[in-house]
Amino acid sequence: MKTLSSRDNPTVRQLRLLAEDAREQRRQGRTLLDGPHLVSTYRQRVGLPRLLVVSESGLDKPELEALLALHPGQETLCLKDSLFREISGTAAPVGILALIDIPATPPGPARGSCLLLDAVQDAGNLGSILRTAAAAGLGDIFLGPGCAGVWTPKVLRAGQGAHFSLAIRERADLAAVIRGYPGRVLTTAVEGGQSLYALDLRGSVAWLFGSEGRGVDSSLASLAQGRVTIPLISEMESLNVAAAAAICIYESVRQNGNVFGSSA
Amino acid sequence: MKTLSSRDNPTVRQLRLLAEDAREQRRQGRTLLDGPHLVSTYRQRVGLPRLLVVSESGLDKPELEALLALHPGQETLCLKDSLFREISGTAAPVGILALIDIPATPPGPARGSCLLLDAVQDAGNLGSILRTAAAAGLGDIFLGPGCAGVWTPKVLRAGQGAHFSLAIRERADLAAVIRGYPGRVLTTAVEGGQSLYALDLRGSVAWLFGSEGRGVDSSLASLAQGRVTIPLISEMESLNVAAAAAICIYESVRQNGNVFGSSA
Repeated sequence: MKTLSSRDNPTVRQLRLLAEDAREQRRQGRTLLDGPHLVSTYRQRVGLPRLLVVSESGLDKPELEALLALHPGQETLCLKDSLFREISGTAAPVGILALIDIPATPPGPARGSCLLLDAVQDAGNLGSILRTAAAAGLGDIFLGPGCAGVWTPKVLRAGQGAHFSLAIRERADLAAVIRGYPGRVLTTAVEGGQSLYALDLRGSVAWLFGSEGRGVDSSLASLAQGRVTIPLISEMESLNVAAAAAICIYESVRQNGNVFGSSA
Repeated sequence: MKTLSSRDNPTVRQLRLLAEDAREQRRQGRTLLDGPHLVSTYRQRVGLPRLLVVSESGLDKPELEALLALHPGQETLCLKDSLFREISGTAAPVGILALIDIPATPPGPARGSCLLLDAVQDAGNLGSILRTAAAAGLGDIFLGPGCAGVWTPKVLRAGQGAHFSLAIRERADLAAVIRGYPGRVLTTAVEGGQSLYALDLRGSVAWLFGSEGRGVDSSLASLAQGRVTIPLISEMESLNVAAAAAICIYESVRQNGNVFGSSA
C-alpha cells in the first residue's frame, strides 16, 4: 500500500475539505466516517465505502487489521500519522477513516412516528438525538434549514452509526411536513404546555424540537397540535434539547408498551 | 474603566490559564463563567464574583450594560476584543466573563436521591447531566476521579447554571459513597438488566452512570443493588450517556408523582 505524506496530493486535499466543510460535503455528496465503530457499522448496514484511509501507525493495530480484512479488494490509502491527524477531527484518532457517498434522501412523506428538528445547531446534541431516535425505532427524521449539517464528521461521531438506520431529510420544509402529517404533531414548551405525563402518546406522533437557545420557531410551533411541558421540579432550570428529546421519545416508548423491546 | 491590551498583564495571564487548564482551576480554587446567562445566574444564586471581565465591544451592548448595573461597586476589567476572544472559549463571545471562587465541597453523606458519575469525560454530556439533575430536583452529585473537570468553562457552559443549585463533589470515592448510601443504588447496563419500566422507582435512588465508551466500571457496578436496562427497540443502537441519564432520572420523576412540578 502506498503511504502518502504530501498535503498537496489531490486526494488528501479533497479529504481535508470534506473533513472541514459541510457545504463541500453537500457539493460532493460525500463525507468521512472517522473511527472503526462508524466504519464497521456502515459496512454492516450499507455496504462498502468508496475509499478507506488508514494512518501509518494504524496499520499495526490488530483492531484495524481485522476491520480491513472485512473489506477485501477495497481501495485503501495510507497516510503519514501527522497528515492523518490533520484530517481526523479527534484528539487521539484510532487511525481509520472511510470516504462514503451520503445516502440519497428518501422520497415520500413521513411514515409512523417521526422527528422534526428546527435549528438544532450543536453537533453533539444533533448526534445524540439521532441515536435516541434510532434506538427508539423511529424511522423518519426531518431537519429544517437551520440545523447543523447532519453528515459532518462531528455529527456522525456523536450519532455512533444511528444515521444508517434512519431516513434523514436535510433542509426540509418543516411547515409542509407538519401540514401533511397524518398523525399528531407535538412540540415542547418550557412552560404552559400540557404535562408530558398527562398525555396519551399511543399511536403515531411527530415530535418537533427546537434550537438550543430559542426553542421552536413560534410560527412552526403554532402549526403543532399540542404543546408539551416536561415538568421541572426546580423551575429555575431548563433541559438540554437532546435530554428533552430523550425524555419525550422514551415516554412514547413506555406508553406504547415497548412491544419490540428485548428486555421489557 | 481601564482597557487592557497586553497578553503579558499578570491578570490576563491568570485568566488565560484558568480558561485552559482544569488543574490550574483546582490549584487556584477559581474558575471563569462565560456569558451573561451564567454570570447572571451566579449573581442570583451565589452572589458577587471576584472580578468581572468585559470586552471593549461588549461595553456598548445594552444587555451587558444592564448586567453590569446589577453589580454595583464590582471590580471590573475591560479587555481588547482580540484578547477577550483568546480567553473566552466560545466562537462568538457576547463579551462578559466572571472570575469566581469554586464553591466549597459540601460536607456529609448523600441526602435523598442523588447521582454518581464514573468517568464521564465529555464536557457537553457532563453539563447536560447536571442540567437534568438540577431540573429534576436532585441535590447531591458525586463525580469519580475519571470525570471531566466539572468547573471547566466548557462544562459550566453546558450546565447552564445547574452547578449552582447542586452540591457537587469532585474526585469522590464512589465505592465508599455506594457502601454508605441508605437507599438503593441503581446502575444501567446495555443488556441483561431489569427493564426501566418494570422497576418501582419510588423513594430514594442513587443513579450510577458510566463513561461514554466503557460504561460503569464493573467493580463499581457490582456494588449497586440493581442493574437497569433501557429498552432499545432497535437493538443495534445504543444511547448517549446524557440521554440515558435523562430517561432514567425522568422516569423517577414520573413515578414519584412530580409533586413539586408546576405543570403536571
